[in-house]
Amino acid sequence: MDGMQINATRREVAPGDSGAVAIVGAGPGDPELLTIRALAFMQRADVIVYDRLVGAAILDLVPASCRRLYVGKRKGGAAMPQMAINALLVRQAQLGHAVVRLKGGDPFIFGRGGEELDYLRRAGIATRMVPGITAATGCAAASGIPLTHRDHAAAVTFISGHDAGTNDGFDWAGLARGDQTLVFYMALSTAGRTARRLIAKGLDPATPVAIIENGTLPTQRTILGTLGELEDLVRANAVSAPALLIVGTVAALADAMPIPREAIAI
Amino acid sequence: MDGMQINATRREVAPGDSGAVAIVGAGPGDPELLTIRALAFMQRADVIVYDRLVGAAILDLVPASCRRLYVGKRKGGAAMPQMAINALLVRQAQLGHAVVRLKGGDPFIFGRGGEELDYLRRAGIATRMVPGITAATGCAAASGIPLTHRDHAAAVTFISGHDAGTNDGFDWAGLARGDQTLVFYMALSTAGRTARRLIAKGLDPATPVAIIENGTLPTQRTILGTLGELEDLVRANAVSAPALLIVGTVAALADAMPIPREAIAI
Repeated sequence: MDGMQINATRREVAPGDSGAVAIVGAGPGDPELLTIRALAFMQRADVIVYDRLVGAAILDLVPASCRRLYVGKRKGGAAMPQMAINALLVRQAQLGHAVVRLKGGDPFIFGRGGEELDYLRRAGIATRMVPGITAATGCAAASGIPLTHRDHAAAVTFISGHDAGTNDGFDWAGLARGDQTLVFYMALSTAGRTARRLIAKGLDPATPVAIIENGTLPTQRTILGTLGELEDLVRANAVSAPALLIVGTVAALADAMPIPREAIAI
Repeated sequence: MDGMQINATRREVAPGDSGAVAIVGAGPGDPELLTIRALAFMQRADVIVYDRLVGAAILDLVPASCRRLYVGKRKGGAAMPQMAINALLVRQAQLGHAVVRLKGGDPFIFGRGGEELDYLRRAGIATRMVPGITAATGCAAASGIPLTHRDHAAAVTFISGHDAGTNDGFDWAGLARGDQTLVFYMALSTAGRTARRLIAKGLDPATPVAIIENGTLPTQRTILGTLGELEDLVRANAVSAPALLIVGTVAALADAMPIPREAIAI
């Protein structure tokens, strides 16, 4: 595999040498769902800048010699402001480091990768993008829910739960048409409001939904039900973040009883 | 890495032993964008069943001892019918083989993975799903186009060009609202019709578009323009499949002049 050339280790570079940043998708959580390139970049980086959605199993793949800078939320505190993260990335690259900016899922789907890329470009920093398995496809595979299907859904839309909760200008009528799959990211706190809006615009309360908590991790739970009971499902099952919400008839195709990984000899 | 246990090589199994099928996303083309699990499964499979969108660079990673069954289109001919592919997968698993069904992109996004999974389940075959980098995120990273962006697009919708060309029942008015990113897969032959429909429903002809041909491969071309000139862009640049179409203001954020891979020392 080519594509990764580190021409200086951390100890050899001097300030002023040109570093670079790779904005890398870490995928949905299962470390085997990292891409080959993501893993290669992580293993040769001088500095890793990561946040809350990058789990311990993935950080374990980073060599001990690599500096790890956490920029996510602290217990009871706030995350580092985006502008401070941008400035940190530029500074580390200007020190000559090979910097990996590691983000859960895919950096260009609700990952603010576009903002970081734009800032780095303006600062003249050589930057590469490495896509990741986004939560929607990771959770779909891990729960047996096809996102498109010729009998069910000709399209799939990804929406952030944050927008679903606050964005009144959103095309709720279009989303409620029922001939597509809807995937809500960070959907937990707004699940009830989302369901009520979709139902108000005409989507059948009997529409199947799947809530996938800790998708692709050993602790994954898949909770199936209907749109009308969504808020109760979240409460009754004490679902906690990270959780993804899939709305559409495809959700009913989920593995009723998933075959345990160990039972499948491939 | 765990998760892949082959308990019999091809020569050791007898008909009647239980095989298994993994339906595996091969990603958008660049072999470094395979997941670690996809590569592990490919390297230990007895049989690989693949089609047109899986390129030579990826097949090169399959061991010589593995049987390769091509089920895509032949020159001047048709692809194997889906029912015949389903039956082939079942037969190979029933022979006791570890079968990898390799699909371009992600198997649950326009990949008919749902249909194959359903058929295999009904036949009692142990089946696993392995997600892949879908063309939208692969091409987005390779062209520097964020699919969501807080200043541009709060949602992203994936649609197949086939449906865009033929599906009159589609929510064209909703797609034309302009506050989201639209990604059309297999978009080439219907690009003109898609543009006319969106414009007829009110989407500004000046809306930026990007056509990405051979996305993530060394032969990638990214062609930028506007929705109003889309059909001319396809014709004037003699774009050929595979090509992905991104419609939305994010398309204007594409790398004006991508930094060559070799120039970035990470």
